Amino acid sequence: MKKHQSRKKKDPIAGYSCNGRMWIENNGETFLGVGRVVLLQRIQEDGSIAAAARSMEMSYKHAWDLVDSMNRQASSPLVETSKGGKGGGGTRITEAGERAIAAFLELQRRFKIFLERETEDLKM
Amino acid sequence: MKKHQSRKKKDPIAGYSCNGRMWIENNGETFLGVGRVVLLQRIQEDGSIAAAARSMEMSYKHAWDLVDSMNRQASSPLVETSKGGKGGGGTRITEAGERAIAAFLELQRRFKIFLERETEDLKM
Repeated sequence: MKKHQSRKKKDPIAGYSCNGRMWIENNGETFLGVGRVVLLQRIQEDGSIAAAARSMEMSYKHAWDLVDSMNRQASSPLVETSKGGKGGGGTRITEAGERAIAAFLELQRRFKIFLERETEDLKM
Repeated sequence: MKKHQSRKKKDPIAGYSCNGRMWIENNGETFLGVGRVVLLQRIQEDGSIAAAARSMEMSYKHAWDLVDSMNRQASSPLVETSKGGKGGGGTRITEAGERAIAAFLELQRRFKIFLERETEDLKM
């Protein structure tokens, strides 16, 4: 409690803050990053790559390439597309996709804490 | 010792790793980042913004703009240029500049450790 208070009371240098970006690579190629994870979340909401792409003002081709890149690199696909059926098929996030989203959001949460602590400790 | 060994033995998911970039902002504007700190280090080595810019394949104007941005945002200038004198003046990194370089390198070191730990803990 005491420690928490003293951390809160510390006065970061006015105006300065640490910021950053994180991503997960696979042998040097981007596997998951903020944009890719938002795309997965939109696909999860919309059930469609085209709708997800539109909502992000991204071309369908670019969205498809990102999905393809993630699926190729994952040990099992994150996005699954079924063809045919009454509605003309559908797109869904797999369990592996859900786990990847959750793992990345957790990583971002820890990164945010790291950045906040570094901001508090800044001496410029 | 035991703990250290067990950390070393943990097998990160083959091929996957966490990577990222960090920078310091001042009210939303970039103050220090990797490129800016390399520029400061080159100025320190070369005693000249022009030579530092050349060594980074950067235009003199861009290097000068970066130095100006850092000097404007710092509580005291990081780079000092003296005009005139026998050699036509010189450019040097101030004590505040040296402290800024050191602080940023320390930050990068801690960020690297953070990324290594997150890489070890990845479950994809």
